[in-house]
Amino acid sequence: MLVFTMRILRLCAVALILFFPYLQAIADPLPSWNEGATKQAIVEFVGHVTDASNANYVPPAERLATFDNDGTLWVEQPLYTQLAFAIDRVRALAPEHPEWQTHEPFAALLKGDLNTVLAGGEAALLEIVLATHAGMTNAEFEQTVLSWLATAQHPKTGKLYTEMVYQPMLELMDYLRDNDFRVYIASGGGIDFMRPWTSAVYGIPPERVIGSRIKKGLEERNGQWVIVREPAIEFINDKTGKPIGIDLHTGRRPIAAFGNSDGDLAMLQWTTAGDGLRFALFVQHTDAEREWAYDRESSIGRLDQGLTEARAKGWAIADMQRDWKVIYPFELSETD
Amino acid sequence: MLVFTMRILRLCAVALILFFPYLQAIADPLPSWNEGATKQAIVEFVGHVTDASNANYVPPAERLATFDNDGTLWVEQPLYTQLAFAIDRVRALAPEHPEWQTHEPFAALLKGDLNTVLAGGEAALLEIVLATHAGMTNAEFEQTVLSWLATAQHPKTGKLYTEMVYQPMLELMDYLRDNDFRVYIASGGGIDFMRPWTSAVYGIPPERVIGSRIKKGLEERNGQWVIVREPAIEFINDKTGKPIGIDLHTGRRPIAAFGNSDGDLAMLQWTTAGDGLRFALFVQHTDAEREWAYDRESSIGRLDQGLTEARAKGWAIADMQRDWKVIYPFELSETD
Repeated sequence: MLVFTMRILRLCAVALILFFPYLQAIADPLPSWNEGATKQAIVEFVGHVTDASNANYVPPAERLATFDNDGTLWVEQPLYTQLAFAIDRVRALAPEHPEWQTHEPFAALLKGDLNTVLAGGEAALLEIVLATHAGMTNAEFEQTVLSWLATAQHPKTGKLYTEMVYQPMLELMDYLRDNDFRVYIASGGGIDFMRPWTSAVYGIPPERVIGSRIKKGLEERNGQWVIVREPAIEFINDKTGKPIGIDLHTGRRPIAAFGNSDGDLAMLQWTTAGDGLRFALFVQHTDAEREWAYDRESSIGRLDQGLTEARAKGWAIADMQRDWKVIYPFELSETD
Repeated sequence: MLVFTMRILRLCAVALILFFPYLQAIADPLPSWNEGATKQAIVEFVGHVTDASNANYVPPAERLATFDNDGTLWVEQPLYTQLAFAIDRVRALAPEHPEWQTHEPFAALLKGDLNTVLAGGEAALLEIVLATHAGMTNAEFEQTVLSWLATAQHPKTGKLYTEMVYQPMLELMDYLRDNDFRVYIASGGGIDFMRPWTSAVYGIPPERVIGSRIKKGLEERNGQWVIVREPAIEFINDKTGKPIGIDLHTGRRPIAAFGNSDGDLAMLQWTTAGDGLRFALFVQHTDAEREWAYDRESSIGRLDQGLTEARAKGWAIADMQRDWKVIYPFELSETD
C-alpha cells in the first residue's frame, strides 16, 4: 500500500513539473488589460527578452524598465498631486508667514485664486515648491508627505491620491518583476515626494525612484548629523533630463520605457535607440467618463509630439478606453 | 527494499534540514580575518540586526551598507588608480593635442615630472580629469576604462589594478549580502570610472555605485540618441558629499559604513547618528611590508581626524597588519 501511494505521489510530482510552465502560461498576468494589439505587444516583448533561445534574449541584470509617474502610474488631473500638496502646505504654513498675505503668488493662492497663481508660470510654481519643500530635514519632509497623503482627498472622487493609481499598470509592473525586470520610476515629480510611499503603493523601493530634486546639505542639529533640504533646485528630471537621471541612478539604458506625455519622449527615444529589442509605450488618456480625455492640447500631461512619433515608429499605445477593463484598484472590489 | 530506501532518504532529508543552520554557522564567513575584537564586532553586529528576536533587529529592506573604494576596497598607493588612468590617457591623447607640449599641467606630465603636476593642486588635477574624462559618449568612456584596466600594471607589483583589491573586504561584502544587506560603493572616485567593472570585481552592479560625477547631456549622434560627457564637474562625492550622494541614490541612511580616510568621516558620522544599532569601521593601513603604512600624515588617504573620532567613539578599526591574514586574492592561490 505504501509503495503504491509513493508511486502515485511520484507521478503527481512528475506531472506538476512537466505541466507547470503550461499552467503558468494559462494564468493571465495582465487581467485588467483587454485582449488586443497593445497587450499582445507587451507579452511578446517580455517573451522574447526572457527566452534564452531567442535572438533578442536579454540577461536579467540588463532587464531595466522605467515608468513615468504622473499620468502613467497615477492620476495627474485636475492638478499634479504634488502641486495639490504644495497648495495645502501653503495654507497650513500661512499663519507662520504673514508676509504671504501681500506677496504673490502666495496671496492669490490663499484667496483660492488658482488662475492667478498659474498665470505666474514656472517662476510662481517654483516659489511655491521651494517655500513648502525646503528648510526641513529629510525625516521631517517625509513625515509631512505621509501625513498629507493619509487624509488628502482627490477633488473629483473623494478617494485618497494613493488609491487613484492605475490597476493595469500595477499588473504590468508585477508582470515585469515576475520576469526578473528591475522596475524604476523616472518622474518629473520630486524624488523625495515619491520615495516615502512608492514601496507600499507600487512595490518600488526608494532606491528605484528617480525624480527632480532640490539641493541638500549635511548639518549637525541637536548634536546629530542630519540631511537638510535647501531652497534651490538642483535637477529637473523631465524631457532630456530623464535619460540623464536614469543614467545617474542606474548606470544603464532601459530596455523598456513607459510614459504618457511629451515630457517622457526623450526617455522613450533614448531607450529605443539602444541595441537589441526595445519597448516603448505611451498611456493615452482617452476615457473622459472613467478618467480624463486629454492629449495634444492639454496644459497638464500634453501628449503631442510624442503621439506623432509613437505612431510613426510603431510604439505601443495604451488607449485607456480601448485597452483597460478597469482604471483603479477600487473598481475591482466594487465589482466583486 | 524500496520502502527501506525511501525511509533512509527521508531520514537524510530531515537530518539536513535540522542541522543545516548549524553547519552554516560552523563555516567561517570571514576566513581571511584574524580572530580578535574587530572580526568579533562585525559578526556580533550582523548577528544582532538579522535576529528577529533581538531588540536591534533591522528588516532586510533597511539593511544598507556603504563602502568607500580607494584604500578601503582596493589599493590607493602610490597614486589613486583613477589618476594613473588619467595620466596614461594624457600620454595616449597627446598626439592629438600639440598645445599640451607648452601648457601646464600637461607639459610637466608629458615630461614625467609628476611633482610639478601635483604642485598645481586640485586645479591641475581637475584640468587633467576633464581633458581625459569628457567629450565622449558613455559607451566610449566605458570602453576606454575597460581597455586600460585590462592591461595597466600597478607600479609596485606589476599586477592588474583589479587584482589589487582586499580579500578580507571581498569576504566582508559577501558576508553582508548573504545576510540580506544591499551593499553600495560610495567613493570620491568617478562614478563612471567604477561602474564598468565593479560587478565582476566586487559583485556590485552599476546601480549600486555612487561617486563623483561630471555633467552629461543627451545628444543625437549619427541619428541615435546617446549620453555625452561634458567638461564640467557636477558633484564631488567626498566628505559631506558622501551622505548627500548616498541619500540621492538610495533614499536611506545606511546602518553600516566602511571607509579608510578623513574623506569618509562624514559618512560614518551620519550613519552612526541614525536610530538603532549602527556599525562604523575604518581600514587602517598599518602594513608597510604587505601593503603600505600611512594615516595621519599622508597626502593620499589621510586618516587623522577620523582616527581620533573612531577611538573616542569606539568604532571598529581593521588594522591591516593585525587583522588581515592575507591582503590580496592572489595570495590565496600562491599559498594553495
